[in-house]
Amino acid sequence: MTEATFIDGLRALAPHPAARGLADDAAVLGDLVLTHDMIVEGVHFLATDPPGDVAWKLLAVNLSDLAAKGAEPVGCLMGYSLAGDDAWDAAFLAGLAEALTAFDIPLLGGDTVSVPTGTPRALGLTAIGRGADAPARGGARAGDTLWVTGVIGAAGIGLARAMGGGDASDPCVIAYRRPVPRLAEGAAVAPLATAMMDVSDGLLIDAGRLAEASGTGITIMLDAVPVTAAAPPGLDGALAAVTAGDDYELLFALPPGVVPPGIAGATRIGSIGAGSGLALTYAKRPVPLPTRLGYLHGA
Amino acid sequence: MTEATFIDGLRALAPHPAARGLADDAAVLGDLVLTHDMIVEGVHFLATDPPGDVAWKLLAVNLSDLAAKGAEPVGCLMGYSLAGDDAWDAAFLAGLAEALTAFDIPLLGGDTVSVPTGTPRALGLTAIGRGADAPARGGARAGDTLWVTGVIGAAGIGLARAMGGGDASDPCVIAYRRPVPRLAEGAAVAPLATAMMDVSDGLLIDAGRLAEASGTGITIMLDAVPVTAAAPPGLDGALAAVTAGDDYELLFALPPGVVPPGIAGATRIGSIGAGSGLALTYAKRPVPLPTRLGYLHGA
Repeated sequence: MTEATFIDGLRALAPHPAARGLADDAAVLGDLVLTHDMIVEGVHFLATDPPGDVAWKLLAVNLSDLAAKGAEPVGCLMGYSLAGDDAWDAAFLAGLAEALTAFDIPLLGGDTVSVPTGTPRALGLTAIGRGADAPARGGARAGDTLWVTGVIGAAGIGLARAMGGGDASDPCVIAYRRPVPRLAEGAAVAPLATAMMDVSDGLLIDAGRLAEASGTGITIMLDAVPVTAAAPPGLDGALAAVTAGDDYELLFALPPGVVPPGIAGATRIGSIGAGSGLALTYAKRPVPLPTRLGYLHGA
Repeated sequence: MTEATFIDGLRALAPHPAARGLADDAAVLGDLVLTHDMIVEGVHFLATDPPGDVAWKLLAVNLSDLAAKGAEPVGCLMGYSLAGDDAWDAAFLAGLAEALTAFDIPLLGGDTVSVPTGTPRALGLTAIGRGADAPARGGARAGDTLWVTGVIGAAGIGLARAMGGGDASDPCVIAYRRPVPRLAEGAAVAPLATAMMDVSDGLLIDAGRLAEASGTGITIMLDAVPVTAAAPPGLDGALAAVTAGDDYELLFALPPGVVPPGIAGATRIGSIGAGSGLALTYAKRPVPLPTRLGYLHGA
């Protein structure tokens, strides 16, 4: 059974409106925003990634979901598997301490279980936030403009370099291992955005999800995307960047004429239109859609 | 590193009062009650347990934590590992549907990840509840009376029978596989209780935790404990019952003269006293404390 098939089965069990059809970054129950993401060794992180960075990432990817709904974090609960490696566990704790401090979020509880030594680690975290204006993924309308925060593609290059042994001080490796959730940006944009989500699997695949949820089409101007300087120049570098995962930037739609309020580093990259699916341009010319739009964990 | 050592490390990272020192059944943040428990194949459930029962148990053990704080469930998020067994996953979904309906709690979100085939399943669930009167574990005072809901020891016998192949319709096996969280009882008792927790690892070990958290001693009258009729009669049966796990009943302390309000099946089993630790009696005579007080997962 694929993840998609299982999630289809779950969806039938989650008719409550707060679940948002299990198709959003988080559940939204009144002013509560709730998310639970897992990261698995060998799938979402490398066995060779420093344990402190794994802790950071576990917290950051969940806070990124809160950011995507404009929510302010109020606490988290962690589910941790002890797999019989004391040095790993100690380094994980040190990284978790750093991340909790950096993002100013209290650890409220969770569970620790022992698993047989050698079992791939599967770590889970629930983040709880509050926010009154949580935009859905599916609220974009034809005529809206499409924006993204930060820089795209650095983490994808960092992943490739980390798999090759990589230098821990390489900014791309850091972008891959220590993503920074865009909490301030999400909170500022949420009251205005018609749709918002985080970019975790790749800009194109995630933009496609926003389009599908909204029942609209999306055109992305690849030459407008803020591609990492570490990428090759031109169309090839842009295509590599927009199909790589782990950016944890925010992708959002704004009504015509509205610009992002007081946040640094948001870039207009496209527009919402009638129809469905994605269209790409580069220097105003159409570009065929790549076969692979992003990174599909476990697919 | 043992679970206890790791949790000591975590505790240093969780100074927020809502975390309750990671020593309570749940976090309590304003009127929100939050818990995240994992269950692991081979540790908290048997590889041979029916998958639908595993789903039931995953939800029930978390709701039991909410019950212990008198909270009303408002939703849950699940972290699920797909381990490459379609029939297992489908049966799990069917059992989850049953449990969500039985406990009337909405599934709001979560995450599904693929793990290598053959990896022991580690399933996590976060339950969110609301309750204004969440009693701590550590509020009992000398002079209070000690009470427990329901019947003790059936699940422990059920576990032994399930390990031996067991009959799925045996009430003890059902007690082990499909515990029923005492939500109504917890909500009724919470405004009055000085301390409350659920009995998950064994009545004695959990009573010891309540005593330690409260800075008190506890005397338990073993002949007053509502031991399952499936246990051998007399002291031996009572000792087996109070040191077996998986009851998911509620253990609570009430001020002198107060009785549980309008709930069926609560039994007075002892008293809170000065000092520390546990003392046992049977027919008013002291009984030595057994070496093993309960079931310590992973210890």
